[in-house]
Amino acid sequence: MTARRTSFIAILLLAVITPCHAEDGYRLWLRFDKVGDEHIRVAYLRQASRATVDGDSPVLNTVAKELTAGLTGLLGQPVPLVAEAGVAPGLIAGVWGASALVARYVSQADVQGLQPEGFLITQKEGQLIITALDERGVLYGAFFLLRHMQLLEPVEGIHILQNPKVKLRVLNHWDNLDRTVERGYAGFSIWNWHELPEYLDVRYTDYARANASIGINGAVVTNVNANALVFRHDYLEKAAALAGVFRPYGIKLYLTARFSAPIELGGLDTADPLDPRVQQWWKKKAEEVYRLIPDFGGFLVKANSEGQPGPQDYGRSHADGANMLADALAPFGGIVMWRAFIYSHEAPGDRAKQAYDEFVPLDGQFRANVLIQAKNGPIDFQPREPIHPLFGAMKKAPLMMEFQITKEYLGQGTHLVGLASLYEEVLQADTYARGKGSIVAKVADGTLYGQALTGMAGVANIGTARNWTGNLFGQADWYAFGRLAWDPYLSADIIFREWAEMAFTHAPAALDAIVWMLSGSYETCVRYMTPLGLHHIMAAGHHYGPGPWVDNMSRADWNSTYYHRADEQGLGFNRSESGSGALLQYAPGFRQQYADMDKCPEQYLLWFHHVPWNHRMHSGRTLWEELCWQYHQGASEVTALREKWRSVKAYIDEERYEQVNMHLAIQEKEARWWRDACLAYFKEFSRMEIPPGLEKPKHSLEYYESLEFPYAPGIRPRW
Amino acid sequence: MTARRTSFIAILLLAVITPCHAEDGYRLWLRFDKVGDEHIRVAYLRQASRATVDGDSPVLNTVAKELTAGLTGLLGQPVPLVAEAGVAPGLIAGVWGASALVARYVSQADVQGLQPEGFLITQKEGQLIITALDERGVLYGAFFLLRHMQLLEPVEGIHILQNPKVKLRVLNHWDNLDRTVERGYAGFSIWNWHELPEYLDVRYTDYARANASIGINGAVVTNVNANALVFRHDYLEKAAALAGVFRPYGIKLYLTARFSAPIELGGLDTADPLDPRVQQWWKKKAEEVYRLIPDFGGFLVKANSEGQPGPQDYGRSHADGANMLADALAPFGGIVMWRAFIYSHEAPGDRAKQAYDEFVPLDGQFRANVLIQAKNGPIDFQPREPIHPLFGAMKKAPLMMEFQITKEYLGQGTHLVGLASLYEEVLQADTYARGKGSIVAKVADGTLYGQALTGMAGVANIGTARNWTGNLFGQADWYAFGRLAWDPYLSADIIFREWAEMAFTHAPAALDAIVWMLSGSYETCVRYMTPLGLHHIMAAGHHYGPGPWVDNMSRADWNSTYYHRADEQGLGFNRSESGSGALLQYAPGFRQQYADMDKCPEQYLLWFHHVPWNHRMHSGRTLWEELCWQYHQGASEVTALREKWRSVKAYIDEERYEQVNMHLAIQEKEARWWRDACLAYFKEFSRMEIPPGLEKPKHSLEYYESLEFPYAPGIRPRW
Repeated sequence: MTARRTSFIAILLLAVITPCHAEDGYRLWLRFDKVGDEHIRVAYLRQASRATVDGDSPVLNTVAKELTAGLTGLLGQPVPLVAEAGVAPGLIAGVWGASALVARYVSQADVQGLQPEGFLITQKEGQLIITALDERGVLYGAFFLLRHMQLLEPVEGIHILQNPKVKLRVLNHWDNLDRTVERGYAGFSIWNWHELPEYLDVRYTDYARANASIGINGAVVTNVNANALVFRHDYLEKAAALAGVFRPYGIKLYLTARFSAPIELGGLDTADPLDPRVQQWWKKKAEEVYRLIPDFGGFLVKANSEGQPGPQDYGRSHADGANMLADALAPFGGIVMWRAFIYSHEAPGDRAKQAYDEFVPLDGQFRANVLIQAKNGPIDFQPREPIHPLFGAMKKAPLMMEFQITKEYLGQGTHLVGLASLYEEVLQADTYARGKGSIVAKVADGTLYGQALTGMAGVANIGTARNWTGNLFGQADWYAFGRLAWDPYLSADIIFREWAEMAFTHAPAALDAIVWMLSGSYETCVRYMTPLGLHHIMAAGHHYGPGPWVDNMSRADWNSTYYHRADEQGLGFNRSESGSGALLQYAPGFRQQYADMDKCPEQYLLWFHHVPWNHRMHSGRTLWEELCWQYHQGASEVTALREKWRSVKAYIDEERYEQVNMHLAIQEKEARWWRDACLAYFKEFSRMEIPPGLEKPKHSLEYYESLEFPYAPGIRPRW
Repeated sequence: MTARRTSFIAILLLAVITPCHAEDGYRLWLRFDKVGDEHIRVAYLRQASRATVDGDSPVLNTVAKELTAGLTGLLGQPVPLVAEAGVAPGLIAGVWGASALVARYVSQADVQGLQPEGFLITQKEGQLIITALDERGVLYGAFFLLRHMQLLEPVEGIHILQNPKVKLRVLNHWDNLDRTVERGYAGFSIWNWHELPEYLDVRYTDYARANASIGINGAVVTNVNANALVFRHDYLEKAAALAGVFRPYGIKLYLTARFSAPIELGGLDTADPLDPRVQQWWKKKAEEVYRLIPDFGGFLVKANSEGQPGPQDYGRSHADGANMLADALAPFGGIVMWRAFIYSHEAPGDRAKQAYDEFVPLDGQFRANVLIQAKNGPIDFQPREPIHPLFGAMKKAPLMMEFQITKEYLGQGTHLVGLASLYEEVLQADTYARGKGSIVAKVADGTLYGQALTGMAGVANIGTARNWTGNLFGQADWYAFGRLAWDPYLSADIIFREWAEMAFTHAPAALDAIVWMLSGSYETCVRYMTPLGLHHIMAAGHHYGPGPWVDNMSRADWNSTYYHRADEQGLGFNRSESGSGALLQYAPGFRQQYADMDKCPEQYLLWFHHVPWNHRMHSGRTLWEELCWQYHQGASEVTALREKWRSVKAYIDEERYEQVNMHLAIQEKEARWWRDACLAYFKEFSRMEIPPGLEKPKHSLEYYESLEFPYAPGIRPRW
């Protein structure tokens, strides 16, 4: 162990001996406060009163730093780093195969099941060992152990071996170079490009720590609506500085690549992927990038989508474009994440079909280092969408799930919505691609078709807000994404409970209440926004608030009316065989669940069918009555959410209690707004009254249509 | 004392008993850490181990809260609030004339010199009394006492009476409703309009506390490039929520008024101030505002300047415009701050003359509740400008000094520049308006012409950055503005020392070093940017970095060449009688100092004269050589600044040490850039070599001219 590390640790210990943290949300779930239960604390102390990390490297030094800091906090006394393990019980961490110390305790048989980035935590001869095949695994093991102790789990006799099931676990930041964040509701971009590379905000390190603690190993730091400027040399130096902060935490830096960069930056007259000059430009650019960032991850690309440049501008295919970039990166081990989020109003038919129609024929044509990144559903992150038909349909190219963590369509910065429920629903959904049980999680982890390269992406909800996510419970969504990227089979409730216990309290009643709030909130949100399979009926542009009346956008598939198709007969989009046929893109096993209007699960009814207003629902109510009931039920559930939060006041620090309290007040107001505006609008078509017993909309439809929010966050202002 | 307050204080005390603050700059100068010197601490404890605040109101409750929290921190033990003062020594605070308790100790004679907002702190019969004629004065007294103790000053026998010398002590936030900050380098706007009025960020309270602690009593929360939307009813409700947070801290909320709001918001077809419908619109709007915000301060207006609408659009005068607004606000006690920052490229002649030419003839025509707000100099916040000729020239209308705290032209977010030096230089400058000694401070405090209504404004440098100002030492500038608004006669060195001691350390050597850094840095900056009276030679648009070559702007007076007038003969702008005659706008006593090129103080030489390149300077060098020497000296002084900061490393917490360290590295790089770019450019005109012994510019002039920063902060991006 180096002298540098020892002195560093010494300073760190002095800093944390008087544990000293205001509760403002900044610490996220990494609150290593002294364990309250004395028995448990003493048991931990017996086992982990000192730590030895065998090996000296940036990542192992991070292990040393994080272990000692976390343990010192939890155990309430300095936990020193010692060079020699000694005989008395202690903590030992090291890479199996590199550490002689670890090899003294851990055998080949013990590590049999380990894979890259996986870890083993085991107790041997009284020593608590954290080991792995690589340094990153040791880091994840260290964070696992800390979480284990935050959750007051026993370490006596511990033997845990875990491998991540997905290889690339990546955050996508839709951050622009001017520090605005597209669809960001947590302030602004944490990346201060102007002052990089010299000024390294501590936030960068705290960001890296938070992500490493949940196993995230990659970050795309620029918007998919990309800016070629990021490839200018000075910007690459800035990016390299960020990469330098990430590296000791096992996180690779990625950038979005604007397809037309050879023109904008290179001065070429084309970006045709088959043009040798273009290929050469990217090759040289990749060399330049890797000289500055040797472990650069690769590119995330949005091409020929919503106005972004791409290979189709030159009559080339997505595969041509992706492969050109992939070839430029391959010598350096880089990868390309090529987004399948494409739709063109020039293509006839249902927007929901277009990505499948464009990408499935290309299956098998992509290079080995290309992943196809697809949103969870075929439209665009709506509160509830059926799974994307691409999952299971592409057999050769690996599909990389893109979840949205920032709540663009689920209440933005002001609503509490436990997204782990959405993620779980998606990952557990059965594609039926290879018969029953072909769940999306098996696409994510590559086991459905035996793919080695796998990935999962989350569009980040992080910004300059002190509590990182603006809405405090947004932290739970970030946390959930990390946990599910590590293990797509986890249950949402387990994730909610982990987060709530680490973020707030061990008190069972309060913990139950908070988990209750989280686990019901997703369905609640769907109810007060887009029940029964409705989708894409938000206001235009900023997407803030309801806008089912929107019908004057420059493209038909940006209108709300395109999606809900309300008319005097009924409501909903017929995607069955008698309609757009989008349902036919799915495997037969999937298809048959939704084909029949009367048998279709009601949560997808209006996604797949145009349903008469007087259609009899399972509840016995008509469609219209059910719609009213769902909206009202959802809004009233927010009131219950508020009450539940008030009931745990005594267990929560004042500042964070108020953050949530104030936001819940806004959520209640907005849920009612959604309810009233949507029902006022749909009523024009159903020509039926709001059922007795339910409040009528507070204002007229004209009032709701007149509301304007020129400075709603997350998008460039209108005025 | 209310039960509510007692329980609140109890909670607060529990929170602060384990003093617990990371040093990240967030606490600003309000670091109430336990007094290290035990003798002093015990002496304080003897005098202030408990506090009684007599009276129950929002402001007095703030007094109670702030006193007990601050004292508890300083004394290292809970300092409770008690209802009864008792006989043992303690602290008593209350309004003289309202508090019977205070009246027991303090006599009419004691408060003889008190004025509104002023305070008396005195020791009587062992009790430490804080009193004032009004609640705000008690609040300022409380903060004064806390500062006194932070500075380890004795309280034994204390008898201090202070009155603010300026009535309106106001921050101006150039914050837009989309949260961008014009000329802001500390992140983004702290006002989260979208989530107001329900979501009240703790930052609003911490902002109010910081300002109250330095006597600031007003905040204009919107940009002078105003947006009429702020007068829409929902935005007024948002503003009212902010006002509600400010009120207990004695701070009034103001808004900028867009002159064309009656059109944009009111649907009128005119904004002519003489049109009765327009007058009626503003009258009704004022009523609406005051219904929501009963103590609303008033309007700040930028009109007929840089494209902003105004009375001149209708052939009316500034007085017509200001008076209309003043009349709308007068029934409610509101005031109008009407900016004199106007210049039109249609007006012939020197930009420096225009404000004087427009406003002096209007003197005497403004309503009593109107102040004329003028920047410190006649151009625009350049590193060094002579004072604005309006100071002293307007005898009836009160002149409100507008200082810039955000460093638009002094290094933006990355340079350490102690602005108290600039402010002091301005306030001590002699206008000679009523003979020698007619210093600007006497205009600010109204004593020059016996004005009752006085004010001082500072364009804020505050944003979402954790340390509030981005560049940590920017806090010193905010602090300095507050202190000088309270007392324009204070010396910069005293202000620097106060801030440095409260922000950092009592250790004399370190304190001296930090004060040394602050007090030299202003002159250093002038040297490496705009020595010898040069001005307005920055890059266009974002104003980031040098741009003496700028000569293609849409208006001549936006070109750098307009200001430096470099040619083969020499450099500088002839503002003497033989030139533009701007010098003639000043009083004779002022004028004669600068009229003669050979006698003109060299720091203003190129401001007032076009000087030959071979003009012999006081140093014996030619103008060209002096220019080179000044630029080189300035840049090397930044290197010395870096070394000085390194020398105090042991006394500073790591995080804040690094913040400054990293910024100083950038400052050194940028100072050299300014030096090299400017000399490479001016060399083209002097056609002389850089003197031997001084480094030549690192790059060619073409290189410097080619640099582009599309995302430099503080202005809308170019790309």
